[in-house]
Amino acid sequence: MFEFKITRKDQHSAARRGIFRTPHGEFRTPIFMPVGTYAAVKTITPEEIRACGGEIILANTFHLHLRPGSELIREMGGLHKFTAWNGPILTDSGGFQVFSLGKFCKIYDDYAEFRSPLDGSKHVFTPQKVIEIQQNLGSDIVMQLDECVAGDSSRRVAESALDRTERWAEESLRHINCFNDFNPKGRGRPLGLKSTKSEQALFPIVQGATFPDLRRRSARFCAGLPTSGVAIGGMAVGESKRDFLKVLELVTPLLPINKPRYLMGVGEPLDILQAVERGVDMFDCVIPTRLARHGGFFTELGKRENIRNATWKLDKRPLVAGCQCPACQGFSRAYLRHLFVINESLGQRLLTLHNLTWIFNFMKEIRKSISNGDFSQLVRRYRQAAKKSLR
Amino acid sequence: MFEFKITRKDQHSAARRGIFRTPHGEFRTPIFMPVGTYAAVKTITPEEIRACGGEIILANTFHLHLRPGSELIREMGGLHKFTAWNGPILTDSGGFQVFSLGKFCKIYDDYAEFRSPLDGSKHVFTPQKVIEIQQNLGSDIVMQLDECVAGDSSRRVAESALDRTERWAEESLRHINCFNDFNPKGRGRPLGLKSTKSEQALFPIVQGATFPDLRRRSARFCAGLPTSGVAIGGMAVGESKRDFLKVLELVTPLLPINKPRYLMGVGEPLDILQAVERGVDMFDCVIPTRLARHGGFFTELGKRENIRNATWKLDKRPLVAGCQCPACQGFSRAYLRHLFVINESLGQRLLTLHNLTWIFNFMKEIRKSISNGDFSQLVRRYRQAAKKSLR
Repeated sequence: MFEFKITRKDQHSAARRGIFRTPHGEFRTPIFMPVGTYAAVKTITPEEIRACGGEIILANTFHLHLRPGSELIREMGGLHKFTAWNGPILTDSGGFQVFSLGKFCKIYDDYAEFRSPLDGSKHVFTPQKVIEIQQNLGSDIVMQLDECVAGDSSRRVAESALDRTERWAEESLRHINCFNDFNPKGRGRPLGLKSTKSEQALFPIVQGATFPDLRRRSARFCAGLPTSGVAIGGMAVGESKRDFLKVLELVTPLLPINKPRYLMGVGEPLDILQAVERGVDMFDCVIPTRLARHGGFFTELGKRENIRNATWKLDKRPLVAGCQCPACQGFSRAYLRHLFVINESLGQRLLTLHNLTWIFNFMKEIRKSISNGDFSQLVRRYRQAAKKSLR
Repeated sequence: MFEFKITRKDQHSAARRGIFRTPHGEFRTPIFMPVGTYAAVKTITPEEIRACGGEIILANTFHLHLRPGSELIREMGGLHKFTAWNGPILTDSGGFQVFSLGKFCKIYDDYAEFRSPLDGSKHVFTPQKVIEIQQNLGSDIVMQLDECVAGDSSRRVAESALDRTERWAEESLRHINCFNDFNPKGRGRPLGLKSTKSEQALFPIVQGATFPDLRRRSARFCAGLPTSGVAIGGMAVGESKRDFLKVLELVTPLLPINKPRYLMGVGEPLDILQAVERGVDMFDCVIPTRLARHGGFFTELGKRENIRNATWKLDKRPLVAGCQCPACQGFSRAYLRHLFVINESLGQRLLTLHNLTWIFNFMKEIRKSISNGDFSQLVRRYRQAAKKSLR
């Protein structure tokens, strides 16, 4: 049910392009996944996601567990039927959200206990429970429960979190049905892991904060698991840009070449490029959509502007000349600015469509450049633009 | 530039169907105009309005005067270019909004002075000023400044408001360019009234609260003006249903048969039917769109439900079986309810599309029934359904 095929490799870096097949269709890598926290990419429809160029969406286990509850979604036939998005769906494990609750979350060796930020109710996440929630959701790619620590955590904290994360990876795998032939010591081949609900692929998550030996240990551990892909977590959580790149350089060479690598929560254009350069295949981030809801929009080379700026008051130009998105095809900056000034959600929606179109085109450009052999020029162009904007 | 052609008359009532031609295309009457207060029908695009069946939209002079200002819209090429809606647009005069400000508005014989509810700034509306604002906006159909009084106003209040409204109608007409041959005492033929900005048709407004003689006087006065249509204002502002129908029965027979009659601010399905029955052609109301943003949706025969209702928690059905709107084509009640529970604007948008589709289909049904000779049965069906729901 799951198959990852690398179709092209860059000559000068670890970048590669590929196709990942899932029970709900395939997507091309490197890929960007828009975030549909509550089973909806805010302000837009599945049809619009597809029209912008979206191939796979992400939904949040933590949020859906609280509202409307995974049992309701199971009753409704799973996330695909519920949302009317019939392409691939990836769900995270809720680990990141739970551990972001701070004092409202207590972590034990076997589980995390937390209070709902909505109503204060008490909840428990075990690795098994999180798998079951995702089985209810019926997503195509599911994540293990992991413990994500801050980028500047102490070694002691990072190590004990990694101990738990590794144990939880094994328990998650054991909990998925066709786990019988799993041997945690041996190096497995990529498998579609059968669940009771539908075919689902579990990705384990590399942790270890910025400690090279912990990251190496975690990468080797994940590489040894019989899964269809591996995620890299605990990144872009406050560590320096230098550490960010260092960790990627440590981790990716230790991961199986023939499995997709998913870098969780990373979506800054330059970060994406530098991660692709180091062999990463999948990305998700709230940036394009959240930015849009606050009036931010992408222009050339990842530059950002804000539509509320008085500069655009009488500007008849589209956000980006030649852009094929519904915002740029229909409306001026002046009108879009007006929509934000009057606090009209149509503005948020149009900017969301623009930013998603922008980032999907950006990923397309990355894939094309890998095929054409000019990926390094692309990275250089974006790096120079980023430097320029810092001046 | 403006032409109203009656294409069919009902045999048993004053109902008629027709086509009204404007510089931005024609629309079929009886028509419902969705309200785009700030030059946007909340949550949806012009393309979507059209796809739902919309033929003409309304925008509010008062709101646009405050934000973004009519000069800005003129600079941007007028409302049609600004909003990307290329069909007919009607703008009101702001009278209703200004006089709704209560103590923040002072009325003089020649003008109204008011404070902006946004920033407390002082503004003056004269009949001429309101015409100029609408010339800046470049709408197709423009309204005179009128004084709209409450449904239970005293005769003294209603009469002096009518005095002003009539004087302001003449001044508005005089202020529009090709006004030279206007004779307030004679009965004019319908004219497209040239403005400096573009071809615009001015509608005078019948007022007079619920006083039969005042309404008659106002209707005769408006009938005598050389305009392309006549509006009926000060309705559905707190008067009884009985008075509402009585006024319509008084007024419409006194209006020229060959001009469209526009009943301002009325949009309850049964009210529309009963007004069409009495010879009204045009309607506008915030009901379908505002209702949608609060979770309300229309089902058969104008019945309303609310999507937040826990009844729909696991309901796999669309809002209305067989409905061709994007909400009903893609999503279950359970999912739409979920969107409202998480406060996601996509839900408001989908219900807006549903309610507009519903009301445009309703108007289509009215027009068809007038052609088919079964309009009175349609009214009866809705009247019975309304009675039933009251029991």
